[in-house]
Amino acid sequence: MAILRRPTLLLDVDRCKRNIKNMTRKIKSSGCEFRPHFKTHQSLAIGNWFREEGVSGITVSSTEMALYFSRGGWDDITIAFPFYPGMLTQLQLLEKSTQLRLFINSEDDIDLLNRDLINNFKVYIEIDTGSGRSGIPVNDRSKISSLINKMRESGKAHFHGFYVHDGRTYTARGSDEILSIIQPSIDALLELKGEYSDARISIGDTPTASVLNKFEGIDELTPGNFVFYDWTQVQIGSCSINEVALFVQLPFAQQIQDSKAIVHGGAVHLSKDTIQIDGKQSYGQAVDFSETDIHVIEGSYLSALSQEHGTLSSYQSNTSEQLVTICPVHSCLTANLFECYYDLDGTQIEKRILS
Amino acid sequence: MAILRRPTLLLDVDRCKRNIKNMTRKIKSSGCEFRPHFKTHQSLAIGNWFREEGVSGITVSSTEMALYFSRGGWDDITIAFPFYPGMLTQLQLLEKSTQLRLFINSEDDIDLLNRDLINNFKVYIEIDTGSGRSGIPVNDRSKISSLINKMRESGKAHFHGFYVHDGRTYTARGSDEILSIIQPSIDALLELKGEYSDARISIGDTPTASVLNKFEGIDELTPGNFVFYDWTQVQIGSCSINEVALFVQLPFAQQIQDSKAIVHGGAVHLSKDTIQIDGKQSYGQAVDFSETDIHVIEGSYLSALSQEHGTLSSYQSNTSEQLVTICPVHSCLTANLFECYYDLDGTQIEKRILS
Repeated sequence: MAILRRPTLLLDVDRCKRNIKNMTRKIKSSGCEFRPHFKTHQSLAIGNWFREEGVSGITVSSTEMALYFSRGGWDDITIAFPFYPGMLTQLQLLEKSTQLRLFINSEDDIDLLNRDLINNFKVYIEIDTGSGRSGIPVNDRSKISSLINKMRESGKAHFHGFYVHDGRTYTARGSDEILSIIQPSIDALLELKGEYSDARISIGDTPTASVLNKFEGIDELTPGNFVFYDWTQVQIGSCSINEVALFVQLPFAQQIQDSKAIVHGGAVHLSKDTIQIDGKQSYGQAVDFSETDIHVIEGSYLSALSQEHGTLSSYQSNTSEQLVTICPVHSCLTANLFECYYDLDGTQIEKRILS
Repeated sequence: MAILRRPTLLLDVDRCKRNIKNMTRKIKSSGCEFRPHFKTHQSLAIGNWFREEGVSGITVSSTEMALYFSRGGWDDITIAFPFYPGMLTQLQLLEKSTQLRLFINSEDDIDLLNRDLINNFKVYIEIDTGSGRSGIPVNDRSKISSLINKMRESGKAHFHGFYVHDGRTYTARGSDEILSIIQPSIDALLELKGEYSDARISIGDTPTASVLNKFEGIDELTPGNFVFYDWTQVQIGSCSINEVALFVQLPFAQQIQDSKAIVHGGAVHLSKDTIQIDGKQSYGQAVDFSETDIHVIEGSYLSALSQEHGTLSSYQSNTSEQLVTICPVHSCLTANLFECYYDLDGTQIEKRILS
């Protein structure tokens, strides 16, 4: 009888390495630079699998995360979060060993960094093509040009290009819909690039990187989630269930009414990220997992989560298996909640802890 | 100018100690046992403030959490999660120094624990009075009586009482509504107790513990969230904003269109727990914080979160203050995401890391 002592983060190393290899080759064969986002795995061990594929520049989402990877030998790092003055002390540490690429959105910040950093650094202007998260609206040409002109004066800040993370692709279903969202973004960037011919175009989202076959007009890609994929990416159509490499194994705790079960797995293991499927809220999908095939257990999903409890619908326990394998809704947030990964042999794989 | 280097978990120690003192005195003066749930703070340092009020028995939600507090000297611990066989190894460790109280819902598990534990332990039967999470439905009298009869045979498992966590109170607004939800639960438990006069009645939720003035018929209370409270508890009516003791301070990153701002604070800091207020989804409420008064900034709340980005509505940055103070939607999940607390003087307060 399979007994699980606690909720466990299970990494299928073969599937993960295959995802890394496939994405690296696809991007490089298109002549683009691949700077994968390491916020998804936050692991030096997994980072090494990228190195084996020839990746040398990476993307992270905080200075703390940059320091973790810098200490592990990565020396070319994009910090894909708008610069704010509180970052300065850590940037001064980082620049000693790392070529930095920063996101800057104000002339004052350029002045500050020109004054307080020692080495040259590259700058992306983050562009908002409509998703409404961070970045400068693509139509705000006067702001964009004044930032670029500021950097063309002498200084350490060197304008490198435009960056877009178009989060709207995460609401798409199917590659046609992904393309119909991302193509106008790309077109808007290319039009902008027409005014700044030396600008590089960098885009970040996993759905686009997964479904686009050629990356025409794009110079760099920075997806992160594809390293594991997850139940949301399966729904979007970025991947098949057999490409998902990260699962959470949860101890079965109690069969309750209406063929529901309680499992030991709550918001502190899976996060409270959720996806609506056929009008039903899911916090994770039950699967039968094997190295050769991953099979979705139809109708059996986490319908509610409290701090440590998960409510699993349409589940009948059997005495030979006292654990449930869940495909997480959002692998980045789920991985962030665990101290380490376990591979299929039960060996720990280290990661960074907390943000 | 206030510069914040990173998202920070701010604990107002005075407000926290006041919450502990008020709840302890109220419960003890009603003649009830107080076994606070420590899953909210997960901190030995904060646990000591309960000890100063004379608390000696506590509640946790996993064997790992029990081990953390047991190593810190707590020797009377309820594990408020349905027992499953994977817990056994850690229970064997725990029972060496700790009087255990467990939740058991099957006769097989009673047999297993009678065989594999050395010392006597107390057992709660968790009752589901309608909330539909874990527990045995209150009307399933045959299952309840067979479990109790099983424990009345010789063995180490000693039936202690009935436990209810009625999560439905978290959907209430105002004390009348809380009472209208919890009173039928309590009545159902008292009717059940009529059949088992030695049974203790234990209830767990913070809204009930906060708004009920006398705890008639109740023997034990195990709330946890009240130690910090949060924006959800303010909305429920369990507390005022001036009783909230936990905040997240976030660096301001960028002013964007429509008087929105991007702050450095995402799902890895606040969790993705959310509350609907006037039809709007909030991941946290901006406040002006001082030791004497906490002032809600109307209309300014986190309307969207990604992994590290928060979108703050109706916010105008000013150059003197480059940080935003957020009252979290769910303090338990937010606290779980940080490595430590900081008090108002900037001193670290230790806590357990991850689950």
